[in-house]
Amino acid sequence: MIYLTRRERFSAAHRMYRPDWTDDQNNIVFGKCSNPNWHGHNYILWVTVKGELSPENGFVLNMTTLKEIILSRVIVKLDHRNINTEVDFMSGKIATTENLAVSIWNELEPEITRAGASLHCVKIEETENNTVEYYG
Amino acid sequence: MIYLTRRERFSAAHRMYRPDWTDDQNNIVFGKCSNPNWHGHNYILWVTVKGELSPENGFVLNMTTLKEIILSRVIVKLDHRNINTEVDFMSGKIATTENLAVSIWNELEPEITRAGASLHCVKIEETENNTVEYYG
Amino acid sequence: MIYLTRRERFSAAHRMYRPDWTDDQNNIVFGKCSNPNWHGHNYILWVTVKGELSPENGFVLNMTTLKEIILSRVIVKLDHRNINTEVDFMSGKIATTENLAVSIWNELEPEITRAGASLHCVKIEETENNTVEYYG
Amino acid sequence: MIYLTRRERFSAAHRMYRPDWTDDQNNIVFGKCSNPNWHGHNYILWVTVKGELSPENGFVLNMTTLKEIILSRVIVKLDHRNINTEVDFMSGKIATTENLAVSIWNELEPEITRAGASLHCVKIEETENNTVEYYG
Amino acid sequence: MIYLTRRERFSAAHRMYRPDWTDDQNNIVFGKCSNPNWHGHNYILWVTVKGELSPENGFVLNMTTLKEIILSRVIVKLDHRNINTEVDFMSGKIATTENLAVSIWNELEPEITRAGASLHCVKIEETENNTVEYYG
Amino acid sequence: MIYLTRRERFSAAHRMYRPDWTDDQNNIVFGKCSNPNWHGHNYILWVTVKGELSPENGFVLNMTTLKEIILSRVIVKLDHRNINTEVDFMSGKIATTENLAVSIWNELEPEITRAGASLHCVKIEETENNTVEYYG
Repeated sequence: MIYLTRRERFSAAHRMYRPDWTDDQNNIVFGKCSNPNWHGHNYILWVTVKGELSPENGFVLNMTTLKEIILSRVIVKLDHRNINTEVDFMSGKIATTENLAVSIWNELEPEITRAGASLHCVKIEETENNTVEYYG
Repeated sequence: MIYLTRRERFSAAHRMYRPDWTDDQNNIVFGKCSNPNWHGHNYILWVTVKGELSPENGFVLNMTTLKEIILSRVIVKLDHRNINTEVDFMSGKIATTENLAVSIWNELEPEITRAGASLHCVKIEETENNTVEYYG
Repeated sequence: MIYLTRRERFSAAHRMYRPDWTDDQNNIVFGKCSNPNWHGHNYILWVTVKGELSPENGFVLNMTTLKEIILSRVIVKLDHRNINTEVDFMSGKIATTENLAVSIWNELEPEITRAGASLHCVKIEETENNTVEYYG
Repeated sequence: MIYLTRRERFSAAHRMYRPDWTDDQNNIVFGKCSNPNWHGHNYILWVTVKGELSPENGFVLNMTTLKEIILSRVIVKLDHRNINTEVDFMSGKIATTENLAVSIWNELEPEITRAGASLHCVKIEETENNTVEYYG
Repeated sequence: MIYLTRRERFSAAHRMYRPDWTDDQNNIVFGKCSNPNWHGHNYILWVTVKGELSPENGFVLNMTTLKEIILSRVIVKLDHRNINTEVDFMSGKIATTENLAVSIWNELEPEITRAGASLHCVKIEETENNTVEYYG
Repeated sequence: MIYLTRRERFSAAHRMYRPDWTDDQNNIVFGKCSNPNWHGHNYILWVTVKGELSPENGFVLNMTTLKEIILSRVIVKLDHRNINTEVDFMSGKIATTENLAVSIWNELEPEITRAGASLHCVKIEETENNTVEYYG
């Protein structure tokens, strides 16, 4: 079993809040991340897949295939976008990095399985000090 | 003459556009950076000051002083904010990194002079591939 | 299950040695790291916790809570300190990164459990080439 | 159980291709990585070993020992070399990062076992966006 | 005057040698970098241009324009190539990073002038420890 | 004129203080950096030299020569040492990064001139947020 990781990036706006909470409640839980005028990040995304090493081409999965799946299913929807209002797979969810990781997993998993590998991990760095990982 | 650099970070939302241009005009010049629903970045800011090495304390400028000037004059106004709508010193300016660098220079310069050093450079990284420097 | 990682840093002095060994014995095992006049590092600490994603706030654990636990239990005791002589939880232990990781785990584990998550990993980078991980 | 990681680097040339395939077949599978005139990378290698923390010296394995094993068994054979034509343990294999990780594992594993620890992971970064891990 | 920097990357093979020198002479001057079977690097290129801040769009130069110039004039010729044998603007030159920086300057300078800015610096990182800068 | 930069690292202990000041005075000016039990850093040192590009070998200065000068004159004296008590060229000076940069310049300048290049800059990173540069 070999693990292959692709790194991609996207820059997006978001805010953390619940529409059914008052501003005060949102502020207590989410602090400055709840700013109604938005803020944003340069998110870094690492997608790790696993599988057997193919004796035919020496790959787990062709990196070009993996890259295209990530770009078409995830990056094109997130980059230079507003996570709260413009991203179909985040609709109705609080825009935390945790929810983002789970949602990106759900977007990628069927495509990576179809391509012949298994999705192992979705890792997202929100700032250089804050990172989330999801293993399904 | 010694040069001393402090690195700070802020996460903010912005969009590049001119209100007196049509959406099409904004799109042609600013592309996806013009998205009306905002996007954002983890900006990295380096502030470089210069001065004589003090024989009394071995400093150009006490790093604590430099840090406090940057935090109080710049970071507190930009971090987790919308650059277009919430930052006094960017009001009425296109929210490019170039304009941000010049405006941050203007915010910092009098304070650093008052503290006994000279402002030498304001450098801002918008993404890992895009950086702007201003030397006054 | 979601994994959340917080990165913090501390700068400290240390030396590796056993007081019950001769200088020669210490030198053979620990080399230049045994220098009796101390040396030091910019340590980087990553603390990973795991837990269920809360449907209420979209978090595993509020990052502010995690940050405060790490700062109050670990960073305040280590930053700008001498690991051998000033850090209560390292008293009587050889100041290796391995021992540091285990001791930091023991400091953090009860607090993180109390906060409602599980400690998953303590990772410490001593230099850009040397890293230690402990999973309990 | 403690995990200890050493980072080393090597710069090497390679191309990905199968000699029993036509140029067209190689191009379809390997693209520009198949260029017959070679290209190259600054590879970064992380070797992680695991073991019990020794109460005698506070180590899993002396980092100097680990470093010497990696340098003598792996780096000296790969650094400033052509992976396809000059590296004994890559002979007859397609020069993918996946094959490289497995081959480096096989080179290191007996030596690390002999030194009293267990090899846990071989991780190789080929570019800042592409990484492979192998756990045996 | 504002300075704008774009970062791009290319992976290439090379060797340092003079065909009019013996192998021994090449070895004495260039060491392992002279290996006749090639080696390679992940080069990082930073191109800095300078100019007046345009009041019309808040730019020195549209980053998209700068990116396209660098990709079309430099990266497409170097990435996944052999610097000694495949790159027209390095033909007949020793493949040092110094010569590469000067040659890239000559490729970029007319295009950047035509685009309305001035080329300020070409900086190339060959390894994380070795960097060259050229200012014309 | 070409600029060539070599990056080296050293891990050292230090404290900032003046022996002719009281503990209180030292605390007011140097804060926690004045801790009498020492602390330490992983310092990163960049040495930049400049000169004409040699048509004979395509170098400003052979990187091996530059590396050996830095190692023998600076790193060997600082790495795993106490800057205050063990480094001849820091004797009697306050152990600030500013003083360190000037002292390293004085150590390197004659050797680099003798090797046929000019010393351009000594840059030291004390932590990822604090850097000093000296240009002579």
